[in-house]
Amino acid sequence: MKNILLIFCGIALAYNSSAQEDKQMVRLAKLVIDSAHLESYNKLLKEEIEASVRLEPGVLTLYAVSEKNRPTHITILEIYADQEAYQKHIVTPHFLKYKNGTKEMVKSLELVDTVPLVPDMKIK
Amino acid sequence: MKNILLIFCGIALAYNSSAQEDKQMVRLAKLVIDSAHLESYNKLLKEEIEASVRLEPGVLTLYAVSEKNRPTHITILEIYADQEAYQKHIVTPHFLKYKNGTKEMVKSLELVDTVPLVPDMKIK
Repeated sequence: MKNILLIFCGIALAYNSSAQEDKQMVRLAKLVIDSAHLESYNKLLKEEIEASVRLEPGVLTLYAVSEKNRPTHITILEIYADQEAYQKHIVTPHFLKYKNGTKEMVKSLELVDTVPLVPDMKIK
Repeated sequence: MKNILLIFCGIALAYNSSAQEDKQMVRLAKLVIDSAHLESYNKLLKEEIEASVRLEPGVLTLYAVSEKNRPTHITILEIYADQEAYQKHIVTPHFLKYKNGTKEMVKSLELVDTVPLVPDMKIK
């Protein structure tokens, strides 16, 4: 009986985990920044990312990189727990501070909706 | 004395952690796959990613996404602990199986070296 219960719990946990991952919103944000404002932009983005990940349980990651050969070209891997978490995120004070504060620094922004190949992938 | 020792250990740990992150190799791989072979390609990539992350301590993540509107366009965020981990990775049997098995399926591959904005960022 105990074994059957354990197997049942295992299946329930696996199902729940997979259902949660199905709801995730995974996106690539591709930005080009005005080189005259790159330092200020990076400071504001870093501040916004650190606040979002610390304060919002539904922001699973915001992994931002700049290209070594073109530091004005930035890509952010954004993972939100679900659409609701994203909707909450874009009205937070820290996001609005970033969005309004960097408006004149961003030359282009492309948002690309994606599907993760291994949805439960982490960073060690 | 105990407090001084604790502070020293804290600084040493922080320094060590930051030094480790400085050595990381962070890259974006951008691929376009032949649509006729997309399913086979995805299967081989998934297998390779899961083996790499499970078997290689120095492969910190391989987060692969395909674009919703262009599923043949794949981006992989690759994080290796250091250059040595990467050099080990590309001679593993699972990587070589993927590389050789997908050679005819990949229409283009661009490898972009990057700098992470928040090097200790994880995925919750």
